[in-house]
Amino acid sequence: MTKLLSLPAAELLDRFASPDPTPGGGSAAALAGALGAALVSMVCAMPKSRTGAAPERARLDAALAWAREAGQRLRALVEEDARAYDAVVAAYRLPKGTDEEKAARKAAVAAAMVGATEVPLETAEACLVVLKSAEEAVSHGNPNALSDARTGAALGWAGLVGAAENVRINAASLPDGGTTATFRVDAAVAEGRRRAEALGLPSTARSAAGPT
Amino acid sequence: MTKLLSLPAAELLDRFASPDPTPGGGSAAALAGALGAALVSMVCAMPKSRTGAAPERARLDAALAWAREAGQRLRALVEEDARAYDAVVAAYRLPKGTDEEKAARKAAVAAAMVGATEVPLETAEACLVVLKSAEEAVSHGNPNALSDARTGAALGWAGLVGAAENVRINAASLPDGGTTATFRVDAAVAEGRRRAEALGLPSTARSAAGPT
Repeated sequence: MTKLLSLPAAELLDRFASPDPTPGGGSAAALAGALGAALVSMVCAMPKSRTGAAPERARLDAALAWAREAGQRLRALVEEDARAYDAVVAAYRLPKGTDEEKAARKAAVAAAMVGATEVPLETAEACLVVLKSAEEAVSHGNPNALSDARTGAALGWAGLVGAAENVRINAASLPDGGTTATFRVDAAVAEGRRRAEALGLPSTARSAAGPT
Repeated sequence: MTKLLSLPAAELLDRFASPDPTPGGGSAAALAGALGAALVSMVCAMPKSRTGAAPERARLDAALAWAREAGQRLRALVEEDARAYDAVVAAYRLPKGTDEEKAARKAAVAAAMVGATEVPLETAEACLVVLKSAEEAVSHGNPNALSDARTGAALGWAGLVGAAENVRINAASLPDGGTTATFRVDAAVAEGRRRAEALGLPSTARSAAGPT
């Protein structure tokens, strides 16, 4: 199968718009996070920082490493989410004529749902790293790139919210009712909300803000 | 110049991460909106709706048309934002040795800033259409695709917030101080916030929600 991120970007958008089950919201959430990570990386990699102080440079270098690592992981998760959901679709299509077939199908669906929950959970957690690195870029990065850093933060938060939606819808089909996965994603969302609010997202958008 | 959306998606992400001034946050906001529009289109185009009632189908068909049109416009805005900001960079690089040169440079920067404000303003307004169509997809679309519709809404909102950041930072350089552009983007953000909150974004992410 062609890797999704090898497709021309316009064709990838067409694939998201197509009625095929994948790629869907989970892959889109990972892509949003990867795009946010790219913007944050750009700002952290700029030679100019807010004040030019050495400790500030060290913080931006650390944030750059986080953003790059999270971005690479999120690119892989774009693909993994599509594969995980393809496995769910394949399991649902198994025969269900006999009792044995029904039992095998049920087990296959349950096994596939574990993957389809775990992948967006990892996406949510990687998006949290994007938000964390965006905070550093906003606080310490080149003021001329403030809108890039803040857009990166908005994308990390959207990716986290989207991934959480996908965790919850799939976790509900797990044998344990998804308690563990839901607990983990709730923790990621709670921390993400705190960080997004600290950045004034989306509330900063309410008041007019000039360049810093 | 190669169109950004003709690049393989992974290479486009690399371009956002590169230290070059474009593509930056404005193009990323438009891309986020286009991705949201694609997810909403997918849900609205599904044969199955929430209840199967005819008026519901008509609403989804209308939302599909809005989402497709906004998505196409946002794809174009990915490119237009990069060109508009390239024009700003080119204007800043004009010579400023003599008084005439200084005056010409100042006029060129001001003219370029008009474009660099207008483009993200259109992005913000198109993202609002994505949010509006996402509401229809969430309320009336196939419940199995609810997480896709909600992820589309989160992306539309992130695109709107990111575009607004870019409008404000550029509008501040306009001759009128950006009053008109700021007024328009404030209106778009206020309506977007109302719609995002009505969808429980991001607050829905707070409470565990099973599939509907």
